[in-house]
Amino acid sequence: MKAEIIAVGTELLLGQILNTNAQYLSRELASMGIDVYFQTVVGDNMGRLRHAIELAAERADILLLTGGIGPTQDDLTKDALAAALGRSLHIDPPAMEQVERFFTSRGREMTENNRRQALVIDGSTPLPNETGLAVGVAIEQKGKFYIVLPGPPKEMKPMFDRQAKPWLLQHALTDEMPIYSTMLKFAGIGESLLEDKLLDLIQAQSDPTIAPYAKEGEVSVRISTKASTEAEAMKKLEAMEAKIRERLPEHLYANTDVPIEQTIVELMTERGLTLSAAESCTGGLLMESITAIPGSSAMFLGGIVCYSNQMKEKLLHVPHSLLEGDGAPGAVSPEVAEVLAEQVRAVADSDFGLSVTGVAGPGDSEGKPAGLVYVGLAERGRKAEVFELRFSGNRESVRVRSVKALFYQLWLKLISK
Amino acid sequence: MKAEIIAVGTELLLGQILNTNAQYLSRELASMGIDVYFQTVVGDNMGRLRHAIELAAERADILLLTGGIGPTQDDLTKDALAAALGRSLHIDPPAMEQVERFFTSRGREMTENNRRQALVIDGSTPLPNETGLAVGVAIEQKGKFYIVLPGPPKEMKPMFDRQAKPWLLQHALTDEMPIYSTMLKFAGIGESLLEDKLLDLIQAQSDPTIAPYAKEGEVSVRISTKASTEAEAMKKLEAMEAKIRERLPEHLYANTDVPIEQTIVELMTERGLTLSAAESCTGGLLMESITAIPGSSAMFLGGIVCYSNQMKEKLLHVPHSLLEGDGAPGAVSPEVAEVLAEQVRAVADSDFGLSVTGVAGPGDSEGKPAGLVYVGLAERGRKAEVFELRFSGNRESVRVRSVKALFYQLWLKLISK
Repeated sequence: MKAEIIAVGTELLLGQILNTNAQYLSRELASMGIDVYFQTVVGDNMGRLRHAIELAAERADILLLTGGIGPTQDDLTKDALAAALGRSLHIDPPAMEQVERFFTSRGREMTENNRRQALVIDGSTPLPNETGLAVGVAIEQKGKFYIVLPGPPKEMKPMFDRQAKPWLLQHALTDEMPIYSTMLKFAGIGESLLEDKLLDLIQAQSDPTIAPYAKEGEVSVRISTKASTEAEAMKKLEAMEAKIRERLPEHLYANTDVPIEQTIVELMTERGLTLSAAESCTGGLLMESITAIPGSSAMFLGGIVCYSNQMKEKLLHVPHSLLEGDGAPGAVSPEVAEVLAEQVRAVADSDFGLSVTGVAGPGDSEGKPAGLVYVGLAERGRKAEVFELRFSGNRESVRVRSVKALFYQLWLKLISK
Repeated sequence: MKAEIIAVGTELLLGQILNTNAQYLSRELASMGIDVYFQTVVGDNMGRLRHAIELAAERADILLLTGGIGPTQDDLTKDALAAALGRSLHIDPPAMEQVERFFTSRGREMTENNRRQALVIDGSTPLPNETGLAVGVAIEQKGKFYIVLPGPPKEMKPMFDRQAKPWLLQHALTDEMPIYSTMLKFAGIGESLLEDKLLDLIQAQSDPTIAPYAKEGEVSVRISTKASTEAEAMKKLEAMEAKIRERLPEHLYANTDVPIEQTIVELMTERGLTLSAAESCTGGLLMESITAIPGSSAMFLGGIVCYSNQMKEKLLHVPHSLLEGDGAPGAVSPEVAEVLAEQVRAVADSDFGLSVTGVAGPGDSEGKPAGLVYVGLAERGRKAEVFELRFSGNRESVRVRSVKALFYQLWLKLISK
């Protein structure tokens, strides 16, 4: 099965918003074993929208349209698809009721244009909108499958997951073997070294397939297989995962798409361990990453952003002689990273304490080059370990990779116990 | 002039990466007065890529292609465009030298496939790659203009800005009046209320045009005009900006596309004021946002992430009686927000101290609903002010909007002085 995704909206063509819907749907379709050959973005214009729909319908079996189903006169997606299919539109009573309820419950008057949000194409299956007002549409005509979804991602995603995907599985994919896949996540290793370690597996791949990819400070490998039952798929995926794990036991931290900080939160919570942190150049990014994980309050006690030297001295008892004066190693030094990690651990009375001090850039600082970072890892009853990191790249990249590198060291420590 | 953007790469069709290039180029083209009618994504496949190029060339005057110009056999963009134009490829000597220098300087052997990165189309203008190896291409044929750019954004953006844009201005846009625009940024106001306040201006708009848009916790308005000189454009834009500012003086914080924290860093640095923060539910996000701004070390001293109650008591002297026990208001309370702001300001000895305590969710906590947040703003020599916020939305959204709301209060305080 071949699919195309058409995102509708002039705001996309003006670059005002990013087309995250196309990425989300592409990934979902890939996981269902559906090939996406084209993604298109078209504006809120009847002629061009119809042209895009007709062109895609010639090339593909499945069309997914997102956006352009709101209340305004600019919202033309359903009208254009209906015209392309030679059908009419009608009001879907349950969707209309939902729109009316929305306005009644807020004590606001419903304007006439809001009725447009309840329109569906004759002969289609309405897709209820659980997080918004505009109803979606699924329809089959002449062996082609058409889905219309809302533009806002918080409406589009639940409608795809809970309405459109089951509809597609039931109507379009009856003959296909489903694809199953596992996402393996790695830390402390770059994309090229990882590919090198798995080169023979990647080159020999047929079933399961192996697809590595990278983003800032993270490398992932997706392994996928088609199978008629989940048990059969899992057997193949687990065998491949075991092969890969055997080669990279000190880097493979998860077999599901989570950041390393989530694995850390889970490992430490399970073992009843607690964490604190002292951040200089990362300015809160490390703690923000940990606390972004729901449930982190069970293991994360808190910490200190000691951006100025005074804060380092006052709250974390860094000796003045380390920070300033002739021969002082300075704030960006292994000595200071060590004191910061040990002191924040002591102040918080946590099992582990982390520290980061470095030059995030742009530009050098106090004679130290941008990209030079020291991270510290203290454990109750032991002297802190310190790691020197050297990065190129901009301020944001240095900060992100410093945090990820330190998380990697902490994870290594946790799994070695 | 009409343009189309074609992004090439199977990784985009698999949803492995987000098409940020299309957004960047769309925005740039809009600012040059060029209409973008379609964006397309196509995979690394010769037939489909040529089909996409030929289709776009029928519809538009300018084609921008990104991606598919690396060293591998999958990188087919220049080959496909050359074929579509009926031309051949040749090695560009300066680009070849750059590739060779790269390998020599790293002491690595250059493999044959790397020569592909120096290929250009016969009769084209090579676009040097300042941040990578693959050379770009600009070419005019039969009144149509074609640009080929690299896929990685850190190579694509500088090549567009410094090579492709000047080439387009010189070759394609000789008759057009350039577009000038100003981005106005607002805080402390939602998109619908902002549109309401500017409704008559938006409805009557012709020149300058007015385009509002929103993202999490931020609202912007872009005003644009065409003019033959910059001075003439600025006069029109400034008059419109003044009209808008008059209606929303307490919300318009910048006339350039910066986050409110950047305005705060600039205002406080100019005035020699310093800042510290105590964060509970936002877990470091506030401090991370401030320290992400280069130069923030001049005004930001640091702060404390007091995630646990013990940290609140130990480091910020929150009385135990406020946190626990019968009748205690609890950690998420105006009383605690007040103590946190005042104490962190005192500990850091800064001019201002900020605090956030709330329930980020998911789920309620200690009998308080998810989305209930108290933020505090303390100033040297004064009692802290506390604001109650109530949000719906997920954990991330509650955290981001809490931080933005508190920045808004700080900005209001700063401009009222």
